[in-house]
Amino acid sequence: MKYPESFLKLVEDFKKFPGIGKKTAERLALYTISTIDKDQINAFSQHLVEAKQNISHCSICGTLMEAHCPICEDSNRDRNTLMVVSEDKDVFVLERNPIYHGLYHVLGGSIDFSRGVGPEDLNIESLFQRLNGLEEIILSLAGTVEGELTAQYLKELLKSKGIKVSRIAYGIPVGADLSFADDHTLELALHNRQKYE
Amino acid sequence: MKYPESFLKLVEDFKKFPGIGKKTAERLALYTISTIDKDQINAFSQHLVEAKQNISHCSICGTLMEAHCPICEDSNRDRNTLMVVSEDKDVFVLERNPIYHGLYHVLGGSIDFSRGVGPEDLNIESLFQRLNGLEEIILSLAGTVEGELTAQYLKELLKSKGIKVSRIAYGIPVGADLSFADDHTLELALHNRQKYE
Repeated sequence: MKYPESFLKLVEDFKKFPGIGKKTAERLALYTISTIDKDQINAFSQHLVEAKQNISHCSICGTLMEAHCPICEDSNRDRNTLMVVSEDKDVFVLERNPIYHGLYHVLGGSIDFSRGVGPEDLNIESLFQRLNGLEEIILSLAGTVEGELTAQYLKELLKSKGIKVSRIAYGIPVGADLSFADDHTLELALHNRQKYE
Repeated sequence: MKYPESFLKLVEDFKKFPGIGKKTAERLALYTISTIDKDQINAFSQHLVEAKQNISHCSICGTLMEAHCPICEDSNRDRNTLMVVSEDKDVFVLERNPIYHGLYHVLGGSIDFSRGVGPEDLNIESLFQRLNGLEEIILSLAGTVEGELTAQYLKELLKSKGIKVSRIAYGIPVGADLSFADDHTLELALHNRQKYE
């Protein structure tokens, strides 16, 4: 059977999302055309366009925002602490739970010379314009070669500024078996061991 | 942090799909706003609306179609065999692989008195208008109480028509362990056992 063109287009669209393979994309497209009602699909269609139109990056910290930055304009947040992250989505992930109450700075990537991404391609200059009054900068970069390189680069640059620079801890995820951790994680977990009291 | 309204709406939209919980919906919405480019999202938005506008049910067999029915108008299909299925999406599932080459008839549900669905609510009258020239009717209904009831109802009605009525086999799925099968499936699998040659 030749599937309807509109159906095949939807399958291709769904496949663009992470974790969605051909089978799942087909299931979602099928559900779209056969089960969800027209009004709900029209609303979904509109929300997709609106999200791309209305959501932009905060010109100060780089967080995804709509009209107002939910972080920079929140007067309840601790303005002495700044967390540096690689990607705009990292902020959303961290904000799922109320574990951090300071400000953020989104670099927009990591240093990766193999892909031609140098420090000048990241939001580093704008970071240095925000140092005034800061007590601590927390580097929450990925535990990858690129994240590590970026963290070391920033640490060197920040050395002379008289601000405490810390890094989130790497180690065994809570609830995970030791056997799932790679050698580098195990090494860092051992190195960062803490007194058990 | 208060998430942007456009983001939250997208999360709700993604949650309407089967197998997508809150966490996955958030991940997909985040990917929409931060990673997929605007043109692709606009295309996706348009395809959703188009799919609902362009895809309808074939007036003869009930298959989802766009302008022309991919089954009824295919002259290569065996017109002596008709497979009866419950839902329009069952046709798509069966057509994923070229295993069946006859025609279809979509009932649009199963008899379910507990929900007030009787035979008169299904496309049964239109099925009886298609019997002329048929050699075999294959009942491919779900292995549920409702599917079973519907299959028995159709079998009784078709008895006097001189057409062979068969049913797809129920049994242990290929590759599955016996322990995953429920008692009723095991019973049917045993009952339908075949000579091993």
